[in-house]
Amino acid sequence: MASIIKQGEHCVIAENVQLGENVSIGHNCIIEENVSIGANTYIDSNTTIRSGVSIGENSFIGANCIIGEYWMDFCLDREPYDHPLTIGKKALIRSGSIIYAGSQIGENFQTGHRVTVREKAEIGDHVSVGTLSDIQGNCKIGNYVRLHSNVHIGQLSVIDDFVWIYPYVVLTNDPTPPSNDFVGVHVHFFAIVATGSIIMPGLDIGQDSLIGAGAIVTKSVEPYAVVVGNPAKTISDVRKVKNKITGKPVYPWREHFSNYMPWEKVGFEAWFSSLDLDERNHFSLNDLT
Amino acid sequence: MASIIKQGEHCVIAENVQLGENVSIGHNCIIEENVSIGANTYIDSNTTIRSGVSIGENSFIGANCIIGEYWMDFCLDREPYDHPLTIGKKALIRSGSIIYAGSQIGENFQTGHRVTVREKAEIGDHVSVGTLSDIQGNCKIGNYVRLHSNVHIGQLSVIDDFVWIYPYVVLTNDPTPPSNDFVGVHVHFFAIVATGSIIMPGLDIGQDSLIGAGAIVTKSVEPYAVVVGNPAKTISDVRKVKNKITGKPVYPWREHFSNYMPWEKVGFEAWFSSLDLDERNHFSLNDLT
Amino acid sequence: MASIIKQGEHCVIAENVQLGENVSIGHNCIIEENVSIGANTYIDSNTTIRSGVSIGENSFIGANCIIGEYWMDFCLDREPYDHPLTIGKKALIRSGSIIYAGSQIGENFQTGHRVTVREKAEIGDHVSVGTLSDIQGNCKIGNYVRLHSNVHIGQLSVIDDFVWIYPYVVLTNDPTPPSNDFVGVHVHFFAIVATGSIIMPGLDIGQDSLIGAGAIVTKSVEPYAVVVGNPAKTISDVRKVKNKITGKPVYPWREHFSNYMPWEKVGFEAWFSSLDLDERNHFSLNDLT
Repeated sequence: MASIIKQGEHCVIAENVQLGENVSIGHNCIIEENVSIGANTYIDSNTTIRSGVSIGENSFIGANCIIGEYWMDFCLDREPYDHPLTIGKKALIRSGSIIYAGSQIGENFQTGHRVTVREKAEIGDHVSVGTLSDIQGNCKIGNYVRLHSNVHIGQLSVIDDFVWIYPYVVLTNDPTPPSNDFVGVHVHFFAIVATGSIIMPGLDIGQDSLIGAGAIVTKSVEPYAVVVGNPAKTISDVRKVKNKITGKPVYPWREHFSNYMPWEKVGFEAWFSSLDLDERNHFSLNDLT
Repeated sequence: MASIIKQGEHCVIAENVQLGENVSIGHNCIIEENVSIGANTYIDSNTTIRSGVSIGENSFIGANCIIGEYWMDFCLDREPYDHPLTIGKKALIRSGSIIYAGSQIGENFQTGHRVTVREKAEIGDHVSVGTLSDIQGNCKIGNYVRLHSNVHIGQLSVIDDFVWIYPYVVLTNDPTPPSNDFVGVHVHFFAIVATGSIIMPGLDIGQDSLIGAGAIVTKSVEPYAVVVGNPAKTISDVRKVKNKITGKPVYPWREHFSNYMPWEKVGFEAWFSSLDLDERNHFSLNDLT
Repeated sequence: MASIIKQGEHCVIAENVQLGENVSIGHNCIIEENVSIGANTYIDSNTTIRSGVSIGENSFIGANCIIGEYWMDFCLDREPYDHPLTIGKKALIRSGSIIYAGSQIGENFQTGHRVTVREKAEIGDHVSVGTLSDIQGNCKIGNYVRLHSNVHIGQLSVIDDFVWIYPYVVLTNDPTPPSNDFVGVHVHFFAIVATGSIIMPGLDIGQDSLIGAGAIVTKSVEPYAVVVGNPAKTISDVRKVKNKITGKPVYPWREHFSNYMPWEKVGFEAWFSSLDLDERNHFSLNDLT
């Protein structure tokens, strides 16, 4: 082990843990074999980091977390396993969160409290996941995605970059429950799914669409469509939605909102123009020009 | 105490704990008086098992659990109490779960993370309860019931065998809130309650019915009915529902799906025919022949 | 430190903690600097109380809680901060709850399990918050408010005295998500918001109104109105709602229900008549006379 600037009492730390400079560890922490923790990272009290976990530098792991949680196979047979978990630098994982072994998470990952991320989740950079949200694993989440509190992402879901999903939304995956015929939802880039919506299995939620609060979405949604109701119906185009006070258009939101987005200081157009072709391809934004 | 094959550091274990062979206990565990733990059971770190708990053999209790949680009366008066909790063999209780004293849980019980089961819950065998689900206690759940993530089971609910309840479903119990006139929902065998449905107090959800996602159910549902909407209305019979890809019928689901069910290897008909009368009575399946 | 009647093993307790008489502390507890704990309070095992927290006498803090949780700024810069948290006497905070530094909570506060209360929440006396509920902070909650399980209170919400909010209700705050134009919901006194309702940003939920289960509320609700549906529409007046069994009126509920209310022993009218003018003003009840 390298330098721990602070280590609390009653910790159990394996011999071969690799620590960067200035790592701080609270009380009652358990850090198992083959763990790597980047420089300047803070591990708060009562947190367990299981074997095979790698956490990037300048991260904060809150109290009472379990990082690298067991898969079901271990619970049943208790055989050693090898499912690495990588979490990029500058993570902020709030207390009580459980992140399984065998997922890959990018930089600047942020969670609320008691978040669950299961195995085989592939999560990009700058993703934020709210308190109590449950990412069921075997899914793919892009960059700059914001999941608010208590969101449920079923297996096989695909969420593109720059998507916003609000509290109590569920992306389902079983068309004829119970079955083995799972099919995931695909939420396309810049889409907004408001509070309490439920998306039926296998649907496409189109680019820049707005799913209204409480919508029960039973058909795929066109790009830029506004849908509401149970069952959800298209009632407008997002480009017609206006701020009630100012009377000005508010969508596409990327032209009006930039907090924590890569265009925060220059505006979307200037930022997008500055990208080279590969980057545009990465962000799937070519058709926005 | 019998043989602990592994015991972590900083545990506090009462003298009179009864342990079967090959029990394994993690770090920082607290095991109080009059606890019984069956052979080959694994208790993960930071878990508390309060007095009066009995856990069957070959079980796995995840980290950060509280098994045998206090009733409110103890929180208020701190007087000793006697509310035994029995959990059958082969339990798999995932990390962060809280199970109260004074409930009875059958064999092969499985939970996700941070599940809550309160007092006076009577739960059968082969029941699975998903992450964050909240069983409010004073209720009865049969065998082979599957509750997915974030399900809320109000007090006085009755759930028959082979019922499926999907995420964010709520079984309510107060017809004129706030009141003291609680009346529970009864979900009959083989029924399927899809994501985000809310069932009003005192209703019967009929055998083999299918409650669509987001349905607000204000009237009792007939057997085999498909209901959707807010308020929910009957739109079909489950026997008319087809798999969109194959075009084949999918309900009653017991004829098409058998994962982890007792008819997994032989099919429903053969299994049911093999039952003797008492067993048929137990499963309430006589009217299916 | 004054008298600890019982202190468990492996605790880490700061030197300058102020303890009243007969405080009891479980195992593995962490109590930081400048904490004050009133007489006869019980702190259960694995609980962390961070610096600057004051808990009133005769309280019960369950296991695995974090009281005085860090703000985001600390997670990022780890600089010392000063955000006091005050919790009044006779609190009953159940296991797994997380309460941030920098909030103010009255007497007789009660929570279920794994409740989250974030910073800058101002909470009155006799408030109860159910399991998994998430109070996002920067909000104001009156006296005798009952939030059931899994309620989500967005920032800037205002909840008057004697309000009931049932499971899975969300008070939203962003009219054009994503934006910076947050505007809170105001739930007026004696209102009842039933299970699974979603209230759009900035709306007023009128005094004594009843929001039906699953209502998606897109317009402000008049006093005494009953609203249901998606979108919600007014269908009746609460004073016309009858108990289905007795046929008698049940609203306004204060005339028919008194459990744990200040009029529990005398009835609402007698209690209200006994108030002096200042108290009536405090409870905003003048127009009820």
